Amino acid sequence: MTQRIPPPTPHIVIVGAGFAGLACAQQLGGSDVAVTLIDRRNYHLFAPLLYQVATAVLSPGEIAEPIRRVLSRHQNITVLLGEVEGVDTNARQVRVDGRAIPYDELVLATGATHSYFGHPEWERFAPGLKTLEDARRIRTQVLMAFERAEMEADPTERERLMTIAVIGGGPTGVEMAGAVAELARLALVKDFRHINPAEARVVLLEAAPRILLAFPEDLAVYAERALKRLGVTIRTGTPVEDISEQGVTLKDGFLPASVKIWGAGVEASPVGRWLGIETDRAGRVRVNPDLSVPGLEHVYVLGDVSLLDGPNGRPLPGLAQVADQQGRYLGQALLARLKGRKAPGPFRYRSRGNLAVVGRNSAVIDFDGTHLRGFPAWVLWGIVHIYLLVGFQNRFLVVMRWLWAYLTSSRGARIIAEEVAEERVEQRDSTG
Amino acid sequence: MTQRIPPPTPHIVIVGAGFAGLACAQQLGGSDVAVTLIDRRNYHLFAPLLYQVATAVLSPGEIAEPIRRVLSRHQNITVLLGEVEGVDTNARQVRVDGRAIPYDELVLATGATHSYFGHPEWERFAPGLKTLEDARRIRTQVLMAFERAEMEADPTERERLMTIAVIGGGPTGVEMAGAVAELARLALVKDFRHINPAEARVVLLEAAPRILLAFPEDLAVYAERALKRLGVTIRTGTPVEDISEQGVTLKDGFLPASVKIWGAGVEASPVGRWLGIETDRAGRVRVNPDLSVPGLEHVYVLGDVSLLDGPNGRPLPGLAQVADQQGRYLGQALLARLKGRKAPGPFRYRSRGNLAVVGRNSAVIDFDGTHLRGFPAWVLWGIVHIYLLVGFQNRFLVVMRWLWAYLTSSRGARIIAEEVAEERVEQRDSTG
Repeated sequence: MTQRIPPPTPHIVIVGAGFAGLACAQQLGGSDVAVTLIDRRNYHLFAPLLYQVATAVLSPGEIAEPIRRVLSRHQNITVLLGEVEGVDTNARQVRVDGRAIPYDELVLATGATHSYFGHPEWERFAPGLKTLEDARRIRTQVLMAFERAEMEADPTERERLMTIAVIGGGPTGVEMAGAVAELARLALVKDFRHINPAEARVVLLEAAPRILLAFPEDLAVYAERALKRLGVTIRTGTPVEDISEQGVTLKDGFLPASVKIWGAGVEASPVGRWLGIETDRAGRVRVNPDLSVPGLEHVYVLGDVSLLDGPNGRPLPGLAQVADQQGRYLGQALLARLKGRKAPGPFRYRSRGNLAVVGRNSAVIDFDGTHLRGFPAWVLWGIVHIYLLVGFQNRFLVVMRWLWAYLTSSRGARIIAEEVAEERVEQRDSTG
Repeated sequence: MTQRIPPPTPHIVIVGAGFAGLACAQQLGGSDVAVTLIDRRNYHLFAPLLYQVATAVLSPGEIAEPIRRVLSRHQNITVLLGEVEGVDTNARQVRVDGRAIPYDELVLATGATHSYFGHPEWERFAPGLKTLEDARRIRTQVLMAFERAEMEADPTERERLMTIAVIGGGPTGVEMAGAVAELARLALVKDFRHINPAEARVVLLEAAPRILLAFPEDLAVYAERALKRLGVTIRTGTPVEDISEQGVTLKDGFLPASVKIWGAGVEASPVGRWLGIETDRAGRVRVNPDLSVPGLEHVYVLGDVSLLDGPNGRPLPGLAQVADQQGRYLGQALLARLKGRKAPGPFRYRSRGNLAVVGRNSAVIDFDGTHLRGFPAWVLWGIVHIYLLVGFQNRFLVVMRWLWAYLTSSRGARIIAEEVAEERVEQRDSTG
């Protein structure tokens, strides 16, 4: 009897467990290929709800699900917690924390981070909102601003402490501005003795002539009115020239503000550098319609770090639904190719609509020309986001939190994290 | 018509919003005395459930409630976020962050922190469990230990990584050991490919001849058996001689362990130093039966930082129920005194029973000689703790989390916090 030697199992390495990487891994789960999913966090983050952690509606654990648990039933998937340092496309290896991991096919879905348009020094004063740590930091800064104002005798400084500048009028900026305004006007309003939190100023700064540039104008106008009703001051056509501990320098003057939140620009993670190839100005890698990288074999790039034109000829936006669809597509395509089946055609994006939330019971949705706004749009937004949350327990808890916040106007997660608070105090001390 | 000059409102300053300080403030709420409550955190922490945050059952926000919200309906109470630096009993002033706050009556309830018995250098390797930051740090260390083990090729190092030493066999140590053992055996068991989390070693180290010294022997024996069923190794009569990054040095050898959790000793906060008076070895201030401080006027000390003998002639233990009862008593006594009513007699502690949880469905309770154990004790423990949690939303969420954890054996809050994870990596790098 001769022993049959099994054919070597192809090994697919996926870097990044965001929407793209996780969707790709799930498609490959249960198959007979070996998959290694590498991420520097142990959890998949539901980024669309980060602003609710930053404004004390939700707790970090409610929008994060351990990657291992999501994939635990797939015995062919190994999850590795580690930081990728580079890729050797000739030797077909990924370097992770000093170790070399060989691959047959490599999927890079490492996402994007903030971009400060050549001013990295602004990051210290104006955190962005991409990670749980960012959300915790912003939450602590906002809550600390009111605490300091309560103790401040000087009225000018008190006003500065109670001014929150949100930079960037895209969906993130709009959601943050609305949620911060509601935090001050509804949740905190009875809790102080020397200040009135409802007098807090939330200023939304946008360089372009209007907010929500990616949305049709009527929806942007609606969102603008809704934000104003919440007490948000909107300043369009107002580019930011400098950011300091004291506030924001604008073309036409200085806006004293203790809290500055950055929602203006993003930059792809360094996949271009790893692969030694050109990127666009935002660091994105131009990919073929099958998500492979021109000139490289067995390498795929997808999600926020990829650059691919959509049906309208413009690059696909950095949205969760784009990343998710690309991940699913690539997982199926890889399986088909490895099994010798016919590969599917090029990736086609099907837009499920463009959404932005304005406050706790209003939203705008642009769905292929159909415009939805106000309360019905918000209900639809809520249903979609609950459905997409990973983990049944999270879905349940988030619904309960929302119901609670909606009925009582209170916030359940008002914790000032100590390490962050101390960092802020040091900053203030060192800058005067 | 002559204008009546109102009598000056007495000003009561309470330092610390733990069980004692908060209970005292609540008694004074709605009265016509002015109260200022000072704490360095913005939240009241429900410390008895900290071990569940450390073992990923609950999220930090679920056991913390903003102090301002708890007291928001009492217009006579001002909450200040600040760090007390000292007390001037002659000028009747408290120094907070460089400011002097005058008082008529001063209530000090600042609690206790860990004590490493003259070895402060151990803290770095063996965190205690007193704050949310501690809990988050322990959770990250435990989860990171399994992540590192999954990637470790050397079997000896893998075994060390998967060994968790809990130092101290009191209620905290017993609760931590049980909860960590269950985390490994139930929640993580399917999630790894190269290690079996159920093979993790949890070792409970106690210097005394038995665990749960404050409990009757039959309950301690029962808890010991329950812990052993969960896979916990118990080593009594085993004092710790040294703690390092690599493990714990015992009288009879070295125990390699990547995670070390300190539950052995506590030390009162520096109230004795502020007041310039003698304390016992644990830093506690001896108080009169009415909680005033011998030799000082208008100063009261209560909770974990006070030393007062109980009905059995031994000092009252550092328990939430002692602190809560002292706070209520003092609030009523102060009100009576300020209104010229007859002050109540000396403080009398009424024990509501001594509890410790062993795993997710077992507990031991000693109630005045009546011993309860196993599942009924656990149900009673759960009801009492839910009832005592501040905030209706927290109660509801915690019940849901427990129900979920009980029915599915999974943990809802398995987040490795980045800042803590990095700190650990640096430590490992610097010590080899």
